[in-house]
Amino acid sequence: MSLFKEKGIKTTPIESLGEFGLIDHLTKDIITKNPTSVKGIGDDAAVIDLGNKYQLISTDLLLEGVHFDLAYMPLKHLGYKAVAVNVSDICAMNGDAKQITIGLAMSNRFSIEALEELYTGINLACEKYGVDIVGGDTTSSTAGLMISITVLGEVEKEKITYRSGAKVNDLLVCTGDLGGSYLGLQLLKREKEIFIENPKMQPDLAGNEYVIQRQLKPEARIDIVRKLEKLKIDPTSMIDISDGLSSEGLHISKSSKVSVQIYEDKIPLDISAINLSEELNLNPILCALNGGEDYELLLTIKQQDYEKVKSDVDFTIIGHISDKSEGNNFLAKDGSSHPLRAQGWDAIKTD
Amino acid sequence: MSLFKEKGIKTTPIESLGEFGLIDHLTKDIITKNPTSVKGIGDDAAVIDLGNKYQLISTDLLLEGVHFDLAYMPLKHLGYKAVAVNVSDICAMNGDAKQITIGLAMSNRFSIEALEELYTGINLACEKYGVDIVGGDTTSSTAGLMISITVLGEVEKEKITYRSGAKVNDLLVCTGDLGGSYLGLQLLKREKEIFIENPKMQPDLAGNEYVIQRQLKPEARIDIVRKLEKLKIDPTSMIDISDGLSSEGLHISKSSKVSVQIYEDKIPLDISAINLSEELNLNPILCALNGGEDYELLLTIKQQDYEKVKSDVDFTIIGHISDKSEGNNFLAKDGSSHPLRAQGWDAIKTD
Repeated sequence: MSLFKEKGIKTTPIESLGEFGLIDHLTKDIITKNPTSVKGIGDDAAVIDLGNKYQLISTDLLLEGVHFDLAYMPLKHLGYKAVAVNVSDICAMNGDAKQITIGLAMSNRFSIEALEELYTGINLACEKYGVDIVGGDTTSSTAGLMISITVLGEVEKEKITYRSGAKVNDLLVCTGDLGGSYLGLQLLKREKEIFIENPKMQPDLAGNEYVIQRQLKPEARIDIVRKLEKLKIDPTSMIDISDGLSSEGLHISKSSKVSVQIYEDKIPLDISAINLSEELNLNPILCALNGGEDYELLLTIKQQDYEKVKSDVDFTIIGHISDKSEGNNFLAKDGSSHPLRAQGWDAIKTD
Repeated sequence: MSLFKEKGIKTTPIESLGEFGLIDHLTKDIITKNPTSVKGIGDDAAVIDLGNKYQLISTDLLLEGVHFDLAYMPLKHLGYKAVAVNVSDICAMNGDAKQITIGLAMSNRFSIEALEELYTGINLACEKYGVDIVGGDTTSSTAGLMISITVLGEVEKEKITYRSGAKVNDLLVCTGDLGGSYLGLQLLKREKEIFIENPKMQPDLAGNEYVIQRQLKPEARIDIVRKLEKLKIDPTSMIDISDGLSSEGLHISKSSKVSVQIYEDKIPLDISAINLSEELNLNPILCALNGGEDYELLLTIKQQDYEKVKSDVDFTIIGHISDKSEGNNFLAKDGSSHPLRAQGWDAIKTD
C-alpha cells in the first residue's frame, strides 16, 4: 500500500541547512501576487499595504523543551515573554503592535489553573504594549506545551524600517545592553542542576536579579520606537536582537548588501552580566555576540544623526557600515580583526 | 526553591471544560481596546477595521497525532489541507483570503525532501485560493510535526457575515454534502489497521475515492462566496462545518440567540458516503451531524432568497431558524424530535 510505505527517495537531514537555510530553501520560489502583499518572508515582519499605512505581521512558535523549560520558566513569565518577543518583531520594523492571535497546544498534564497563569502573563504584556487578543486556537497535544503567536502591527509608510536600508558610512547602533539574557539562562540551568542533585539546596540567585529578568521577562523596546520618533531619527535599517549580535549584524549585512564593522570595546554590557560571566567562566562579549534573546534593537543611522544619540543612555554606537567588499568584521580590543560569524551557543561554551 | 516546586494550588483538568469551554474561560475577560479591533474571539475569524473594508484573521493549529496521522496523510495533502481549512474560515465570514503565515515545528525524523513535499501542497493550495505566503517561523520539535497557520483576508464591510445574524424564520442552508470526510477517515484507519497486521495486503479503496478526497484534500468553498455575490444573497449568518453539523448549528444558535431546527430527511449525503457507511456499520446521518471536517458552509438566508437557491445543486435547505424558546431540534424522518447536541465522534461510534 503506497500510502503507508516509506518512499525510496533521497532524504537530506534538516540540520544540513540550519534554520535560516531551511526557510530560504523552502520559500525561495515564493512570489507574492496580491498587490497588497508588499514584503513577504525575509524581515522581522511581513508588510501589507493598507492604503494609508502599512500593516506588519509576524509569527513565532515557542515550544517546551526547545524554547523554554518550565522547570525555571514560570508560566506567567512565559506568557509575558511570548507576547513581548512578538511585539519586538513589530518594533524592529519601527511599528506599533495592535493585535495578536494565540494558538495553544498543551498536553493533559496542564491544568486550567496553569493555563490561567499563562494567560495572566499574556494579558499583562498585552496591556503593557496596548495589544488586543483577537483570536486563537486551542488544542490538545501529545507532548508538552506549544505557543504560536501571530502579531499584527501598523506603521506609517514613511517610517517603515527594513533590514535592507543600511548604507556605507551609516553608524551601527544598539539599544540597552547585551548578553544578559543568555547569562541569566546559564544561571537558571546551573541552579536547576543543583536542585535536581539536592532538592534541599536553596537557589543562589542573589545579585543576579537583572540577568534573570532579562531571560524570564524581556521587554519589547517600543519605548525606542517612540524615542526615535521624538528625536526625528529615521533608522536606515533595523532588526531585533533575538539570536545574538553577530547573527543580526549579518542579517543587516546580507539584506542591505553592505558589511558591518563591530568594535569589541563598544559592545554594551551590564556590570551584573560581567560579574556573572566571570563566575560562570564565560566570555561576556561572546555572550553578547552569540547568546541572543536580549530583544534589544540593532539599527543603523545616518552620520548626521550622531549628535541626537551620542549622549543618550539608550543608544550605543558599536560600529559602522562599510562596503560589502570589506567583509563583516569583529574588531577586538587588541586591534586584531576577525570575520564576524553567527556561531550560536556552541561558540560560547567552547571558549 | 520555589521556581522548581510544584505549587500547592488546586488543579482542574482541562477536559472538564472542553475546547470551546476552555477558550471561553481563558478569554472571557478580554476586552479589545484598539479602535481597529472590531471583533475578537468568538467567530470563524477576528475582524479588523481597515477603513474602507474589513480585514479577517484566523489561526489554526494542526498537530501530528491529534489532527493528522502521517501513516495515511501524505505530506503534500497535509500541506494543501492546512491552507484550505484556514481559507475556509475566511469563506465563513463571506470574505476572500489574501495572505498566510506558516509556523512549522518538526522533529529530526523529517528530511528536507519531506518538508518540500509539504510545501508543494501548501503552494498548490495558495495558488488555487490566490493566497500569498508572507511569513513564517521554523523550529525543531521534540515530538512530531506541528503546523500553525494564520490567514488574513478581506471583505467589504456590507458583506461581512457573522455567526450572530440569524433571525427567526430564516432558512438554514448547507452547501455540498456532509459526513463524507469522517467516513473517509474511518476507511483510512481501517486500512491502516489491516496494513499493520498484514503489510502484504493491498488497501481496498476502490469506489471510495470521493470520501477519501473529502478527508485528505478538502476544499474551501470560496466558489460559494463568489456565487452568493452573483446571486445577490447576503447570508444573515454563516459558519464553516469543521466540527460537524450539530456543533455548527449550535454555534449559530448561541451567537444569534435563536434556535435551529434541522430535518433529517434534508441532510445532503453523497451516495458513496451512504454505501461506505453501510459497509462500516455507521449511521451516515450521525456522521454528518458529528463527524466534521467536511469544510462545507452552513448559512442562514432570508425567506425571500428562497427562489435563488431552491434549484441550485450547491445549496440544500436543511431547516429553519425559530425562536430561542423552541430549543435546537433534530427532526427525524419518523416525525420524532430530538434536542440537538454536539456529541462529537463518540456518539457515532456507539450508535
